[in-house]
Amino acid sequence: MDLVTVRQIYKDREQYLNKEISIGGWVRSLRDSKAFGFIVLSDGTYFETLQVVYHDTMENFSEISKLSVGTALIIKGTLVATPEAKQPFEIQATEIVVEGASSPDYPLQKKRHSFEYLRTISHLRPRTNTFQAVFRVRSLIAYAIHQFFQERDFVYVHTPLITGSDCEGAGEMFQVTTLDLNDIPKTDEGKVDFSQDFFCKPTNLTVSGQLNAETYAMAFRNVYTFGPTFRAENSNTTRHAAEFWMIEPEMAFADLNDDMELAESMLKYVIRYVLEHAPEEMSFFSQFVDKGLLDRLHNVLNSEFAHVTYTEAVELLEKHNDEFDYKVFWGCDLQTEHERYLTEQLFKKPVFVTDYPKEIKAFYMKMNLDNKTVAAVDCLVPGIGEIIGGSQREDDYDKLTARMDELGLKKEDYQFYLDLRKYGSTRHAGFGLGFERCVMYLTGMSNIRDVVPFPRTVNNCEL
Amino acid sequence: MDLVTVRQIYKDREQYLNKEISIGGWVRSLRDSKAFGFIVLSDGTYFETLQVVYHDTMENFSEISKLSVGTALIIKGTLVATPEAKQPFEIQATEIVVEGASSPDYPLQKKRHSFEYLRTISHLRPRTNTFQAVFRVRSLIAYAIHQFFQERDFVYVHTPLITGSDCEGAGEMFQVTTLDLNDIPKTDEGKVDFSQDFFCKPTNLTVSGQLNAETYAMAFRNVYTFGPTFRAENSNTTRHAAEFWMIEPEMAFADLNDDMELAESMLKYVIRYVLEHAPEEMSFFSQFVDKGLLDRLHNVLNSEFAHVTYTEAVELLEKHNDEFDYKVFWGCDLQTEHERYLTEQLFKKPVFVTDYPKEIKAFYMKMNLDNKTVAAVDCLVPGIGEIIGGSQREDDYDKLTARMDELGLKKEDYQFYLDLRKYGSTRHAGFGLGFERCVMYLTGMSNIRDVVPFPRTVNNCEL
Repeated sequence: MDLVTVRQIYKDREQYLNKEISIGGWVRSLRDSKAFGFIVLSDGTYFETLQVVYHDTMENFSEISKLSVGTALIIKGTLVATPEAKQPFEIQATEIVVEGASSPDYPLQKKRHSFEYLRTISHLRPRTNTFQAVFRVRSLIAYAIHQFFQERDFVYVHTPLITGSDCEGAGEMFQVTTLDLNDIPKTDEGKVDFSQDFFCKPTNLTVSGQLNAETYAMAFRNVYTFGPTFRAENSNTTRHAAEFWMIEPEMAFADLNDDMELAESMLKYVIRYVLEHAPEEMSFFSQFVDKGLLDRLHNVLNSEFAHVTYTEAVELLEKHNDEFDYKVFWGCDLQTEHERYLTEQLFKKPVFVTDYPKEIKAFYMKMNLDNKTVAAVDCLVPGIGEIIGGSQREDDYDKLTARMDELGLKKEDYQFYLDLRKYGSTRHAGFGLGFERCVMYLTGMSNIRDVVPFPRTVNNCEL
Repeated sequence: MDLVTVRQIYKDREQYLNKEISIGGWVRSLRDSKAFGFIVLSDGTYFETLQVVYHDTMENFSEISKLSVGTALIIKGTLVATPEAKQPFEIQATEIVVEGASSPDYPLQKKRHSFEYLRTISHLRPRTNTFQAVFRVRSLIAYAIHQFFQERDFVYVHTPLITGSDCEGAGEMFQVTTLDLNDIPKTDEGKVDFSQDFFCKPTNLTVSGQLNAETYAMAFRNVYTFGPTFRAENSNTTRHAAEFWMIEPEMAFADLNDDMELAESMLKYVIRYVLEHAPEEMSFFSQFVDKGLLDRLHNVLNSEFAHVTYTEAVELLEKHNDEFDYKVFWGCDLQTEHERYLTEQLFKKPVFVTDYPKEIKAFYMKMNLDNKTVAAVDCLVPGIGEIIGGSQREDDYDKLTARMDELGLKKEDYQFYLDLRKYGSTRHAGFGLGFERCVMYLTGMSNIRDVVPFPRTVNNCEL
């Protein structure tokens, strides 16, 4: 169908002004008087709506005036400038065809709905202003991330979702099976007979693609993943989802400094991209969702991220222990309250915290010379806390296996991973960015359920 | 680390010629004579390798000469032009530092390995020529698809992976559960007690994001998904994987013609993109993997896709029934042999086959006026057969529910989907592109296991 979009009209108005055009879209609101009426139309392609004026010279004038919010229309008319009005132009309609009526019980009548209510109609909420903005920006952020890495010749790797190993020992994973749950086959010893399962062994949904990504970094040097990951954690918070997307770059011939440089460049690139490509949406967030959002993002763009070691950070935070629920001490895992205090109160900008005690970090992180801390880094941002976690990886075969022994990890489960340290090992580093957390950070939305199209959380798997 | 990449050197040689540079990479091969030696180095950033010359003036000359294939090196030296040699330039090394040795049992010695063997070392195979080419091109195709849709302002939607519904009735799905398989909790009636499961109900891995994507098309007009999908089919073929990626665009205010126009534009865009961005890899495939690949792809670029209805196609094919294992008749599902005959023998270019009998297509496809066929389309390409399947969707509430009744589908399972036909329904259409099939088509690789980094197939879930 040859329909002009609202985006085209706003972006390229000169081409359409005073011409007859056809547009399709949905009624956001409608008011009529005796001889004419106004329709506010959205076609989903642009954050702004389009005003349509129609007159009683139209033969279906009275039918149009009775239409419900949400009706789909195809409108023919002339685009005319309206220099005195709030909106820059409007369509003077010559023909309006109802493409699909909207039942009067349409849940999105012209009034404010709470986010809680809108979560119960996740198939309709993208039609509202806020969620139009959220999900367009989510799409742009995803693309900006791809563009950032592809411009730098990183190879995009699809690491597997179904996995036979619980690699990080991350614990709570979803099992994947084709066995009949009503009648699980058992072996003679009374154990689950996985030889009858699809993969002939127990399988889970992945919690991270990192270990697989490392194998590709050792072939392509710079790679990244961008795919779904899963956690079966029973945590019903505003920041946890059971299914979420993650970005995990991994670079060979790179150390922790390269890693931080990449993370800072990436965050700034993405912020710049959405500010440029969704200015209307970003203003909307800053005005109605999270006051000061734009200032905060511009501040990030214009500042160099701070750098502090974990040990220094603990010293800084200990002075304010009376302000915290959890007291800080060397060796403790930093809580969100501490992270936010660091980035919001002490540094007032994003901060990289490096060199954490090995006990609170994963086995694969590179041991520092002090033998107490590892070359790990968390990036903390105002309003969120940790947004990125990364590290240089242990590239020494002997040190890595020694650490695995300490932690009781079985070498035979990690043979492929150890091979990377046996055949041309190089210093390498990478990080993980939780995509939803990034969307929350850039939109100011405060509940992860409101930045995922169809969220999956404890006891919630609708649509 | 400030290392120049092999890609930078090839792309921007003038900047580096006769300068001292440092590069990191892995030894592909090494030969030495008395006073000097040659190293062929790959750093994974470019399909071509780089020749390094080193001399016995170097203090670790003899150590270098003993290095194994696969060793990681950091090399300092001067890039010099070599107009008489096969390669355009080489590095005259002044310093070679071993970053990580390679054990002499390195499986990728300089000889030809079969794809079957390389599948057993999926963590190392991306270091070989063929898989360097495959997985770089895979990455480029993925990005080209994003770029295609984003340039057209399509919104990228992450549809959920874990789903509570078996939407297409597609049958063989993977179950997702946190129940203890060794001791499944049961209700008083002896059924599985899903109230104890993570989502408090049975859940599966999705087979398609389409129905969810439709809800977003009704908000944003043009959307696309690009994510993993799963089939627990017990089919051990060269074309089926249990986990694969799929692209599913969906457009509101669009019919079957718009759908075909989009599919054709997309395929041509992606082909053009990889030819431009990976010319070395594409020549390699055409020379060593699938003779004639480049001709075939250029032929696609330069032709308009053919259009034929299913009914016409059946008439054409029936004349050749003696050449088929499965005889063609009106009402039959076309087999790969028929699809390939159509596109390779009869049309000699890609073909859209439209208007299939409703019995062999999904419930949501729009009924044609003949009440026998639906507005479905398959896109067939030479060498593969079906690469894309799509349709205009039934947008009429009554017709859709009538069809669901015929097929015994429960309306309460599809309430959200029916809502789309109740609140501002519009004509709309979309299609699904199997990403791996697309990669096979563009690389000429004939086994799906060789275009997925870590393939999951029946009885196979390694790494």
